[in-house]
Amino acid sequence: METYRRKSREERLKEIKQAAQGVFLRKGFKDTTMEDIINETTLSKGGFYYYFKSTKEIYFSILEEKSDDSITYLGKMLAANQDSKEVVDYLTESIFEDFAERRLFLMGLYESYYDNDFMERFNQIQDKYVDITVNIIIEKYPDMEEKKLKKKINFLYILYHAFVINCNMMGGKDIYKKNKKYLKDLFTNILKD
Amino acid sequence: METYRRKSREERLKEIKQAAQGVFLRKGFKDTTMEDIINETTLSKGGFYYYFKSTKEIYFSILEEKSDDSITYLGKMLAANQDSKEVVDYLTESIFEDFAERRLFLMGLYESYYDNDFMERFNQIQDKYVDITVNIIIEKYPDMEEKKLKKKINFLYILYHAFVINCNMMGGKDIYKKNKKYLKDLFTNILKD
Repeated sequence: METYRRKSREERLKEIKQAAQGVFLRKGFKDTTMEDIINETTLSKGGFYYYFKSTKEIYFSILEEKSDDSITYLGKMLAANQDSKEVVDYLTESIFEDFAERRLFLMGLYESYYDNDFMERFNQIQDKYVDITVNIIIEKYPDMEEKKLKKKINFLYILYHAFVINCNMMGGKDIYKKNKKYLKDLFTNILKD
Repeated sequence: METYRRKSREERLKEIKQAAQGVFLRKGFKDTTMEDIINETTLSKGGFYYYFKSTKEIYFSILEEKSDDSITYLGKMLAANQDSKEVVDYLTESIFEDFAERRLFLMGLYESYYDNDFMERFNQIQDKYVDITVNIIIEKYPDMEEKKLKKKINFLYILYHAFVINCNMMGGKDIYKKNKKYLKDLFTNILKD
C-alpha cells in the first residue's frame, strides 16, 4: 500500500511542465495565462508561483529541458560515423517529423517578432546545442579543428531549422518531400568539407 | 498655377498604402489600428473605409501590388540565360537584402500562426508568382516540360524564402554569408536538372 507523501520538487516541476505543454499546444502561447496552467495542476496559486513567475519562464524551461539524448544525438552520430550517409538521412527525414517540442519551438518563434527576449533565448539554446555537439565530436576526434567544426555544426543547425520552419510556416512540407535529394546533397556537401 | 482637383482613386489608394506601410513597419501589424492609418492620411474615416475595411485588407493589397518588375524578375533572368551562374548569384545575394516589402512579409508570416487566412493568402501569392514565372520561361522555351518546370520554380521559391526567413528570424544572416557557396551549389543543382 502506497503511503501519502509530499511531491518532490522534481515531481512538481514535471507536473507543471506537462500541464503547461498541454495548454500551450491547445491555446497557443499568446492566449495562455498562468491561471490556465495552474488550473490543470494540483498546486495552489502560491505554490505554483514559487516555481514559475510567468508563462515565458515555463515555456523556456520546457524547451531547455529536452532530454540529453535528443541534444547529443547528432554529435553522437557524427562521432560514430566516418561515413556520413546515415547522418544525412537522419537530418533529412527528421525535418518532416511532427512532435510536441517542435510545435512549441515554432510557437515561440512567432512570439519573437514582438519580444526580443525570445530571440535571445533561442540563440542561447542554439549556442548550447552547438557546443555540446562539438564537444562530443572533439572528444572522439581530438585532432579536429574545433573552430571549423563549430562553424559547420552552427550552419547545419540553422539550415535544418530553416527547413523545419519552412515546412510548417509556408506549407512547404510536400515540396520538400519531393525534393529531398537536394537537401541530402546539401547536407552531404557540408559534412564532407 | 496648379488648380485644386480631387485625388483620383489610384492616388487615394497609393496614399493609403504608403501611410499604412509606414505604420505597419513602425508599430507592427498586430498593434496597428485602422485609426492609426487614417490619421496619417488626408482622408476622412468614411472616405477611408470606402477603400478598405480592415488592416489585413490593406496589408495584402500592399504585398500583392509588388511591381510587375519584381514579380517577373526571376522568370526573365531564367528565360534570358542559358548559363545559370547569373541567376544563382542573384538568388543568393538577394537573400541578404533588407527592404520594406520583405519586412512586411515577415511580419505577416508571424501573424499566420494565429490566423489561417494569412497562410492561405501567402500561398495564393506564391501560386501567382510561380505561374507568372513559369509562363515567362515557357514563352521563351515552348518545348520545356511545364509540370517539371513548375515543380522546380515552386521549390526555388520556397527554399529562397526559407533562407530569407531564417536570416531574419533566427539571426542566421552571418552564418549564411559565411556559407554562401553551399547555397550557390544548391541553387545550381536545382537549376541544372
